[in-house]
Amino acid sequence: MIYVIKIGGNVIDAEPSLRSFLQAFSQVEGKKLLVHGGGKIATRIGDKLGIVSQYVDGRRITDAGTIDLVTMVYGGLVNKQIVAQLQSLGTDAIGLTGADGNLVPAHKRPVKTIDYGFVGDIDTNLIPSAKWYNLIEQGMVPVVAPLTHDGMGNMLNTNADTIASALAIALSKHEPVRLIYCFEKKGVLESVEDDGSVIRKIDKVSYASLKTGQKLFAGILPKLDNAFAAIDAGVKEVLIGHADDLLQNTTESTTGTLITA
Amino acid sequence: MIYVIKIGGNVIDAEPSLRSFLQAFSQVEGKKLLVHGGGKIATRIGDKLGIVSQYVDGRRITDAGTIDLVTMVYGGLVNKQIVAQLQSLGTDAIGLTGADGNLVPAHKRPVKTIDYGFVGDIDTNLIPSAKWYNLIEQGMVPVVAPLTHDGMGNMLNTNADTIASALAIALSKHEPVRLIYCFEKKGVLESVEDDGSVIRKIDKVSYASLKTGQKLFAGILPKLDNAFAAIDAGVKEVLIGHADDLLQNTTESTTGTLITA
Repeated sequence: MIYVIKIGGNVIDAEPSLRSFLQAFSQVEGKKLLVHGGGKIATRIGDKLGIVSQYVDGRRITDAGTIDLVTMVYGGLVNKQIVAQLQSLGTDAIGLTGADGNLVPAHKRPVKTIDYGFVGDIDTNLIPSAKWYNLIEQGMVPVVAPLTHDGMGNMLNTNADTIASALAIALSKHEPVRLIYCFEKKGVLESVEDDGSVIRKIDKVSYASLKTGQKLFAGILPKLDNAFAAIDAGVKEVLIGHADDLLQNTTESTTGTLITA
Repeated sequence: MIYVIKIGGNVIDAEPSLRSFLQAFSQVEGKKLLVHGGGKIATRIGDKLGIVSQYVDGRRITDAGTIDLVTMVYGGLVNKQIVAQLQSLGTDAIGLTGADGNLVPAHKRPVKTIDYGFVGDIDTNLIPSAKWYNLIEQGMVPVVAPLTHDGMGNMLNTNADTIASALAIALSKHEPVRLIYCFEKKGVLESVEDDGSVIRKIDKVSYASLKTGQKLFAGILPKLDNAFAAIDAGVKEVLIGHADDLLQNTTESTTGTLITA
């Protein structure tokens, strides 16, 4: 089993939560890979540098200044701090973007109504899965920043959830994969106000009936759609929940929500 | 033969010179590795962020703000821009710092009279040479930023010349290495004002007599001392000269200064 684990900005922004997450992550046995999001630090640094986020129709645009900013902050600062901390915990982390080794081929998102700028859509079928598997089999633990490239010399801002799911799909060719999404909640909740209402298991049949019954918080639907898309593409299972709980017990899921076919 | 090639800030700071260097580099046949320095861009970004270089007795100190700055700029922006450009030229570049894969173990420089802050001295004998050689043998081209780590979670600012020489020494265990230092001059000059006065070849005997005759510009002596130290530690030859000339002809040196035992 390979564990593809994704953490978001909420874990990265708070130093104690990052440290405790990395400790738990370093103790996960077996083959594993970490994908990290960005966090608010890019906005803080961008403000000081006078790089202002551009929006068109409420959508964030990645202009030339912003792609340089996130390449620095996500690909440099955040990525290497995670790598150095994991190394200090005895985990042989290696920091990567999708440009390194052309490990995540992508292309600039096509312009329909909005030009998102330097934003990458992943060419999932072109991911060199054997190269990834080889790195992991050699005992290395990739730490992947939310950046890809277009093969023409440009870095591209890319959603970390999507990178995690694309890598999980690619690695599934070699070995069963559990994709783990860490987020703010303890799992998919039946009642969004009640952290105790975690739904332990969702499969396609129960998902259909949950949707029909309009039981779920709308915000969770894209995450669940992604999860089922990953499963349809070969990922064995997807676990969604809070970073503090999920990694305590990666083989037997006793917390969070487990998504299966 | 493995080519370990180092470029400094003068190449990185000028966009056209970087592009033409990377084109020449991508055409070097065989096993190769690039170590890059920083360049002035870190100072420019640091100024905007209010990170001011600290000096003690004229020596630059790397404080906490500065190590974050250079980790961002050298490890993120500069490194990934080089990687993305090399990928677009068909070279399978992979960007690395010494923290990634613990590929360049180091320790914080001991405090004698000056505390240099987060500055790393390399533990050359601990460099995992087989791991480097393995990456290169697989056809990957490491692009190395001037950063190491202390194994305790801290990134360290580290001289790019020293990283290049340490890697050349480590790789010499596996295959003959030519270490190539690109700098502003066309080579070691007999007369510092005359670019045509390149000394084509220096060995230990001629170096001793050049030193005795006080023929050399004092600024070149540390570079030459480093070069001979690398040769004493197993590196086959060192080539010093201008980036524009050196890579045109890497197997037969017709430009620059060739240093041999």
